[in-house]
Amino acid sequence: MATTIAVFDSGFGGLTVLRELLPLVPGAQYLYLGDSARLPYGSKSQATIARYAVESARFLVARGAQHLVIACNTASALAMPEIKQAVDVPVTGVIEPVVSAAHQSHPSAQVLVLATSATVHSHAYRLHCAARNLNATEKACPLLVPLVEEGWIDHPVTRDVLRIYLREALAVCAPKAVLLGCTHYPLIAPAIESGLRDLGCHADIIDSAKATATAVARSVAQRSPPSDARPAAFQCFATDSVEKFERLGSQFLGRPVGQVQLVDLGG
Amino acid sequence: MATTIAVFDSGFGGLTVLRELLPLVPGAQYLYLGDSARLPYGSKSQATIARYAVESARFLVARGAQHLVIACNTASALAMPEIKQAVDVPVTGVIEPVVSAAHQSHPSAQVLVLATSATVHSHAYRLHCAARNLNATEKACPLLVPLVEEGWIDHPVTRDVLRIYLREALAVCAPKAVLLGCTHYPLIAPAIESGLRDLGCHADIIDSAKATATAVARSVAQRSPPSDARPAAFQCFATDSVEKFERLGSQFLGRPVGQVQLVDLGG
Repeated sequence: MATTIAVFDSGFGGLTVLRELLPLVPGAQYLYLGDSARLPYGSKSQATIARYAVESARFLVARGAQHLVIACNTASALAMPEIKQAVDVPVTGVIEPVVSAAHQSHPSAQVLVLATSATVHSHAYRLHCAARNLNATEKACPLLVPLVEEGWIDHPVTRDVLRIYLREALAVCAPKAVLLGCTHYPLIAPAIESGLRDLGCHADIIDSAKATATAVARSVAQRSPPSDARPAAFQCFATDSVEKFERLGSQFLGRPVGQVQLVDLGG
Repeated sequence: MATTIAVFDSGFGGLTVLRELLPLVPGAQYLYLGDSARLPYGSKSQATIARYAVESARFLVARGAQHLVIACNTASALAMPEIKQAVDVPVTGVIEPVVSAAHQSHPSAQVLVLATSATVHSHAYRLHCAARNLNATEKACPLLVPLVEEGWIDHPVTRDVLRIYLREALAVCAPKAVLLGCTHYPLIAPAIESGLRDLGCHADIIDSAKATATAVARSVAQRSPPSDARPAAFQCFATDSVEKFERLGSQFLGRPVGQVQLVDLGG
């Protein structure tokens, strides 16, 4: 019996985490839920975000999830205790794995976190980094998500915008590692890396999708028998905007997302 | 007794309409509501958008609104019948005035509408234009709102992005008028104009904020006695993100927005 791993995000950005998971735990069954009707979570209150995340987590467990991945920075920052209390399966967020990976490769170092305004505003990365003795500078990059969603992945405007953000960030810190604190950013990791190099920064880039997938694979291996040889199967659910999900989701997943099923989680 | 005019938008973009109204109807009292907790409306279903807009309209009428301005393209496109049925004060949307202005200055012409993806997807401008015998090309410009919200108003990246969007649009049409179909765009009207000129296009720019304010001033003048000489007063309400509203709203309004009052319209 294959393990069922469920990945949750407010939109389709978390598909970058699913993309990394598929080869790491190839025999698993996957569920993915994008709560697209209620995004963006970033502008909502903590109580509202926790309610949405708990509803989403319960939906996925009711569908058979045995491991839950919160591939949403806002929910990982603000609702992990509520989610863990609401379900009785292991839960992995997206912040702890990337901070842990930075700590392992660069203990006590200065790190730069690139993230959305909402994530920076929560200071979740700074707090997690401080707990590991990492000194984090958080840089809000509000244009990067719209640029990725516009499909301008390898594009001169995206490179110009990155140069502006990275120059501002490097004016106030000299990082050993750059943490990608948004599930959209792995798609432009090569542009981020060359932007850093052009500005004379040779920091490692630590990708939250890869780090989270590695942590989940480890957790699954501890709890489940080795997966069988069948190829991974996945089913995607969204609470709205199925058309946009299907159109953009495939870019994030690196393969077709298939037919996305619309679900109603209420108001 | 001064007339009370209420302006409603899903966010603070509609403040560009209020900005144009203040000098046109100087003696009025103004209310402004940004339903920021539930934005963006663009990804929601028609039924949900109509429910949100009706709740917002009723809130404003309960606060004394005698004229209601729907300064939100999505609500203007999808919920005008429901709003007009729900309240017994005159209601002016943002689409009809700008299309009417284009029709008056350029009858039967080809026009270009710049708007968000959601507005383009609704084809509300194309339908309103067709009803006036205008042939509209609708161009989605999804990066312009994030660029304006980042404050990159007079900025090389914004000019580059505009050049790309305008070149794509002008490859398929030769407009006599360019309609700004988003309440954020008046802030970058000079950049849009110079972008058009650089590409050899000398179309008139028709600003939805100015056109809507003119239509509202005409409606108010027909129904109300001339306003007294007291300066206009306004009070802003938002359903969330008061901090962002106060920070960015002043740019849209062209003066301080004052203290924004948080209100709860429900889930």
